[in-house]
Parts: sequence; C-alpha cells; structure tokens
Amino acid sequence: MIYDIEEDRIRNKISNTCKDYGLRRIQYSSFVGDLNTNKRQEMFHRLKRTLGRKRGKILVLPVCDKDLKLMKEIITDSELENVNGD
Amino acid sequence: MIYDIEEDRIRNKISNTCKDYGLRRIQYSSFVGDLNTNKRQEMFHRLKRTLGRKRGKILVLPVCDKDLKLMKEIITDSELENVNGD
Repeated sequence: MIYDIEEDRIRNKISNTCKDYGLRRIQYSSFVGDLNTNKRQEMFHRLKRTLGRKRGKILVLPVCDKDLKLMKEIITDSELENVNGD
Repeated sequence: MIYDIEEDRIRNKISNTCKDYGLRRIQYSSFVGDLNTNKRQEMFHRLKRTLGRKRGKILVLPVCDKDLKLMKEIITDSELENVNGD
C-alpha cells in the first residue's frame, strides 16, 4: 500500500486503517502486510471511503511470496548505518 | 521502487536513475517499470552508490504480471476527479 495524500488528517486516518489491517510501515508512505483477497478488497474500500474526494493517490498492490523474497532494501541511517542487500 | 530520502539533491538523483531505467513515476516517491533481473540488479547497485551514506531508505520490489493485474489505484484530484478501481 503506497499513498500520496496532501491533508495531514486524512493521511493519518489512512495510515491508521493500514495498521488496523495489521500492515506495518516500511516507508513514510508505504505499508506492507499479509492480507487475503477478501481483506485486501475490504481495506481498499475503506481506504476509498476515507479518502473520499480529498486530493490523494492510493495504490494497493498484492505481492506474491516469490516476489517478496526478491525484494531488496537499502537502509541508511546515521544511527543504524544498516545496509541490506548487496 | 519506493524511497524515503531526506536530501533534495540525492532524491533528485535517485529519481533520475529510475527514469534512466525507463521507470515511470506513479507516486511522489514511487516508480514502476519493466526491468529484467539483470537490469533490476544493476539499477539497485546504482541506487545504492547514489545514496551512499546519506540518510534514506530505498526499496526495490519485483512485481509479477499476475500481481500487477490485481493492482488497484484510487486517484482523486480536484482537476481530474478520476477514481480507478471499484
């Protein structure tokens, strides 16, 4: 789930919905988690209702296990200095 | 490809790299596009070099055609009022 939402209040509501569905934040505006097709669709409709006609863009993308295993992340942080992947 | 990068200059470099690899911007900090495994790995290494030790987080996630077909987007815009998905 990736989103671009202008209004803080709506953005917070959207991220709370993601958390309600057990997703975890992986980037400032991205969440991932395990959802079956029904739950994914249910969440999609809830996100749509929450956004309403406010300016924004929400993307819900299913990712299969095979692809998830190929995911690579680069994380640098002045505290962590943690770099994943090669 | 999803990223969180603090520094404007680096963020621009990262988005230029994505464009060099033929990716298109789908959200403020997300790009998608067709890449074979070699190109994806090459891009990953270039992104890693570009970010260096600057603060940031970059995620490169392969998405198979099957999943891509199941992708759903909600786009609202005061000009477009365009809503995809149901």
